[in-house]
Amino acid sequence: MKSRIANGKPTWNATVSEPPDPMPTIRTRITDLFKIRYPIVQGGMIWAAGHRLASAVSKAGGLGLIGGGSMDPELFRHHIHCCRCETTQPFGVNIPLLYRHAEDLIQVALEEKVKIIFTSAGNPGKYTPRLHEAGCLVVHVVPTVTLARKAAERGADAVVAEGVEAGGHDSLQGVTTLALVPQVVDAVSVPVIAAGGLADGRGLAAVLALGASGIQMGTRFAATLESSAHPDYKQAVVEAADDSTVLTLLKTGPTRMIRNAFTQRVTEAESQGASPEEIKALEGYNRSRKGIFEGDRSEGKIEAGQSSGLIREVLTAREVIDRVIAEYEQTMKLLPIMERVAK
Amino acid sequence: MKSRIANGKPTWNATVSEPPDPMPTIRTRITDLFKIRYPIVQGGMIWAAGHRLASAVSKAGGLGLIGGGSMDPELFRHHIHCCRCETTQPFGVNIPLLYRHAEDLIQVALEEKVKIIFTSAGNPGKYTPRLHEAGCLVVHVVPTVTLARKAAERGADAVVAEGVEAGGHDSLQGVTTLALVPQVVDAVSVPVIAAGGLADGRGLAAVLALGASGIQMGTRFAATLESSAHPDYKQAVVEAADDSTVLTLLKTGPTRMIRNAFTQRVTEAESQGASPEEIKALEGYNRSRKGIFEGDRSEGKIEAGQSSGLIREVLTAREVIDRVIAEYEQTMKLLPIMERVAK
Repeated sequence: MKSRIANGKPTWNATVSEPPDPMPTIRTRITDLFKIRYPIVQGGMIWAAGHRLASAVSKAGGLGLIGGGSMDPELFRHHIHCCRCETTQPFGVNIPLLYRHAEDLIQVALEEKVKIIFTSAGNPGKYTPRLHEAGCLVVHVVPTVTLARKAAERGADAVVAEGVEAGGHDSLQGVTTLALVPQVVDAVSVPVIAAGGLADGRGLAAVLALGASGIQMGTRFAATLESSAHPDYKQAVVEAADDSTVLTLLKTGPTRMIRNAFTQRVTEAESQGASPEEIKALEGYNRSRKGIFEGDRSEGKIEAGQSSGLIREVLTAREVIDRVIAEYEQTMKLLPIMERVAK
Repeated sequence: MKSRIANGKPTWNATVSEPPDPMPTIRTRITDLFKIRYPIVQGGMIWAAGHRLASAVSKAGGLGLIGGGSMDPELFRHHIHCCRCETTQPFGVNIPLLYRHAEDLIQVALEEKVKIIFTSAGNPGKYTPRLHEAGCLVVHVVPTVTLARKAAERGADAVVAEGVEAGGHDSLQGVTTLALVPQVVDAVSVPVIAAGGLADGRGLAAVLALGASGIQMGTRFAATLESSAHPDYKQAVVEAADDSTVLTLLKTGPTRMIRNAFTQRVTEAESQGASPEEIKALEGYNRSRKGIFEGDRSEGKIEAGQSSGLIREVLTAREVIDRVIAEYEQTMKLLPIMERVAK
C-alpha cells in the first residue's frame, strides 16, 4: 500500500480517507490457506481448548481450534456456537478420529458449517471426501513421513508434523520435531505445520527454517488464561523443567505427561514387563479429565510437552501470540549472515 | 575488504600485490572460540571419527574431532599425529569420561598439546582444571538443562546440548534438541552447540534461531567418504527413513541405532521386563565395532540418529560442509519477514 502523503505534502488524492494503520503479518502458505495473520495454530487439546481459548487465539491473529476430543456432540455444538459469537475471524475444530464420538462430531461440524477441520489418529482419508464436498479444509496430524505421505495422498490440504516432544498422545516411533519436519517437507507438497516442543518465537523461526509453514502450540496455549484447564494444571506446566515429562503408557497408547505418582507406577510396571491389560487396570478411567480439568497433580494425567520448561507464566492467548511474533522478529535480526573476510 | 581496483582502473596502490579472494564465513561465538570458519562441529563418534575424517572437516572450515572412545591410548596418539600432519587448521578430540581409557586419553591429549577437548558422560568437572591449566578449551556434552548448568559451573567453555534424536548414547530423560537447546541457552552463559537430528543447512539455521552458536553433526559425518565406518554402515544410514532408528538398551545404557535383528531381540526382552543382567547377556561384546566398523547390519549396533532419513548419499566431508553452508544461505533468503498490510 503506497502512502498517500509524499514528502510531507498531501498528494492530489489526499482528501480520500486514509487507509487504516497497517497490520503486521507474517505471510506463509498456511496464513494464505486459513486467511489468518500469523502462522500460529493453537492445538485442539482435550479439556483445555474450548470456545474461550479458540476465539481468543483467532482474535489475536492465530488459528484457534476447539478440541472435540473431550466433548459429546451437543457440547461440541455449543462451543462452536459460542466461538462464532465471540469472533468473526476464522477458527477450526480438532477431531481425533479414534474417539468414540468422532462420527457424530464430524456431523456436527458439517451442520455448523465449520470450514477448517483438523483430524488426528485414525484413517486420514475416511472423512476427507465428505468434508471437501462441504467446502472444508482438512488438516491431518502425522508422526512420521509415511503417515504424512498417506495423509497427503488421501487429500489432506495440510499436515501437522508432530514430534514426540509434544504433550498428550504421541507415536511409538518417537521421531522428534527437528528430525521430522524437514523430512516431511521433502516428502509432501502440501504445507506443513510443525508441532511439538514449541512455545516461543525462536521455535517459530526454527521450524520455518526447516521448511514448515507454521507452528501448532499445544502446551503453551493450555497454560493461558483462556484455557479451560484447571489452574493447578497450568501451575504444573509453569513449574516444569525440560525433563519433567515422560512418554508413558507405551503399550496402551503412548502419551506424554508430567511425571507424578501415577506415571511412576506405570513406568515401574512397564519396566517389569506388565501386560497391556495390567497397564489398563492401573490406568482406570478419566485420568485426563482428572489431571487437566480437575487439576489433580499427583493422580491425574497432566498431559504436557517438553516445551513446558520454556513456559514460565500463565499469559493471555493474545500475549502469547504477541510475544511469539516479537521474538520471531528479534530472532530474525540476530541470525548471522555470511560474511566475506580476508584469508 | 575494499577492492584495490576502482571502476576497472588500478588505483594509486595497485602495484601492491592483491589480497587473496575473500573467504566466506558465518561468524558466531563458537567460530570465534575455536578460530574456525563455519559453526559446524563434527561429532567424535566411536569407530567412525579417525584422523582422516577430523582433518577433512577441519580443512573444509569446520571443527574436526578425533573420537577417542574406541581407541587405546597409543592408537589415539597416532591419530593425533596424523591429523596434525594433514591439516594446520584447529581440530579437537572427544573423550567419553566413562570410557575405561579416559584417564590415559586425557594424558595423551595433554602430552600432544591438543587444545580443544570435548568430553561426554561422566563428571564434567573432573579434568577441567588440569585441562585449563594446559591452555585447553573444554566442551562438555549434556542432555538436560541441569547437566548443562553443572558443566558451565564447573568451567566448561561451551556445552553441546544433545537431544535424544542423536545416534549412539542418549539420555533416558529423552529431551529433544528442539526443546533442549533454547532452555539450555536460557540457563547458561557459555556458547551452546546443538546436536541431534541435524544433517543439513536448514537444521543449522533452525538451531541458530533457537539461540545455539553452532551445530555438531554425528551421523551425517559418519556417512562420509573419510569416515572409518564400514561402507555397509554408511549404506544403512543412506537407506534409513525418519523412523528407522530406535532408542534401546534402556536399562543398561540407552543407545539409538538403526533397527535390526539385534534391536528386535532387545526390544522384545525389554518389553517383557528383562533385567539389566539379562539384557547385558543378550548384548554381549563388541557390537558397536561389529556394526559401525565391520558393517554387520543385522547383528551389529548400527548407531545412527533420526537425521539418517535426511542423508541420501555418501559425500566427502567438504561436500557436506559446502552444502550445509549453501543451504543455510538459501534458508535465510526464504524465511518470511514481517509485512505490513492494510487492515
